[in-house]
Amino acid sequence: MVKLKIGLIGSGNVASHLAEKLFKSGHCISQVYSRNISNAKKLADRVNAEAIDDLQQLNYQSELLIISVKDDAIQTVLDRLEKTEGLVVHTAGSISMQILNKFSNHGVFYPFQTFTKDVVLKNTVPFCIEANREENLSLLKKVAYSISELVFEMNSEQRKKSHLAAVFACNFSNHMYYIAQQILCENHISFDVIKPLINETANKVMSIMPDEAQTGPASRNDQTIINNHLAELNNEHFKKLYSFVSASIVEQKFKKE
Amino acid sequence: MVKLKIGLIGSGNVASHLAEKLFKSGHCISQVYSRNISNAKKLADRVNAEAIDDLQQLNYQSELLIISVKDDAIQTVLDRLEKTEGLVVHTAGSISMQILNKFSNHGVFYPFQTFTKDVVLKNTVPFCIEANREENLSLLKKVAYSISELVFEMNSEQRKKSHLAAVFACNFSNHMYYIAQQILCENHISFDVIKPLINETANKVMSIMPDEAQTGPASRNDQTIINNHLAELNNEHFKKLYSFVSASIVEQKFKKE
Repeated sequence: MVKLKIGLIGSGNVASHLAEKLFKSGHCISQVYSRNISNAKKLADRVNAEAIDDLQQLNYQSELLIISVKDDAIQTVLDRLEKTEGLVVHTAGSISMQILNKFSNHGVFYPFQTFTKDVVLKNTVPFCIEANREENLSLLKKVAYSISELVFEMNSEQRKKSHLAAVFACNFSNHMYYIAQQILCENHISFDVIKPLINETANKVMSIMPDEAQTGPASRNDQTIINNHLAELNNEHFKKLYSFVSASIVEQKFKKE
Repeated sequence: MVKLKIGLIGSGNVASHLAEKLFKSGHCISQVYSRNISNAKKLADRVNAEAIDDLQQLNYQSELLIISVKDDAIQTVLDRLEKTEGLVVHTAGSISMQILNKFSNHGVFYPFQTFTKDVVLKNTVPFCIEANREENLSLLKKVAYSISELVFEMNSEQRKKSHLAAVFACNFSNHMYYIAQQILCENHISFDVIKPLINETANKVMSIMPDEAQTGPASRNDQTIINNHLAELNNEHFKKLYSFVSASIVEQKFKKE
């Protein structure tokens, strides 16, 4: 298994998760940079690294330099970095690889997951990787497989589209859960009643595709139930959403047949 | 544990799942009725019951008679049934308990799950129960707990609202997965890349409520990313849905603050 000497710029959620996971997998984290030295130290201590708060102190001896800062801070960091022969990557879903063009070896190392502070980075988090040269891609692939079972090669455009798809599949799904929560709460019903169904719905698309998994009144074009449901909704906003999404499901089914 | 003598009217998905689960839990299924005798036989054979295709043959000796037919067939079945002292229940989410008023002991025994033929009824499927008398409710509760860990008492109105909530949390979430599938497919990206995120999103609301679990551009009111995403969507329908749901999330967050 590949063991690299890695420098890390950033100490936020993604940076922390990555550093700890890479450290535990036997890689050496040499330096952790953060503008805030106490943040840098907190993370550096956990992964046996040197903490720095000045990019001038960067030793440029890493085989892999990971830039994991907020999207709008990447350019500022890049402007302060010197050229290096090591492989330089960022971890941002919606930033193109080209932003790293000044480095002869560069790529993207994007963990496709929503991170919350306390959750451990699982082995099933997909890594979307891209690099400017075949040998860099091959190295990134090895690093990714050292901490995850799921590695996908994709270009910057595809990475952007994956992010967009995730907004639908995750953020918007969660909003549907939220509306369910509101309806249940208004009627003094525990949210617990719907949890198994939410799980089942997510589980289903692990083995069959969503277009085949669809059930419910709209997928049967059952206008009686649809109209009953619309009449039951007293929130105008939810009502509009109900007809809009139902129409979209009917349209999807109609298109298919 | 309670062991009942049960009569079953119906041989569809819900009826089959219930019969097998009840049989395995030690209840005695005495008769299975279906208009189609070969369907009745298929199920009856599996649960050691008598198959009948004529309601006149019903022996009315069951302690519990379960009517598990399509919503619009319930009334026809009821019109042909004689009065009985046994507890008579239906398994329909959106039909009121009152439809069973002619029986002195009646109730509802509604498994809150989408059933597909091959899937086994899990112990975590919630049962929503209701009855016209305390002792009937108590009996139904025992039967429900004999095949599931999750039992909820609710009235007909609440059951209807739960069904409505499930359309949002399940059917509409699945439609969001479908749109993600379309975006990924158009860009030659495997749907596998998004599966861990879908799982994570569902898992999150097992422990925190959806309103707290929300992340993404709309929940941060990040209009730059929202506009970028809208520009990336070439399907007018998805574009409309994106702005509509985003606005709904922004509105939800705004209302809270």
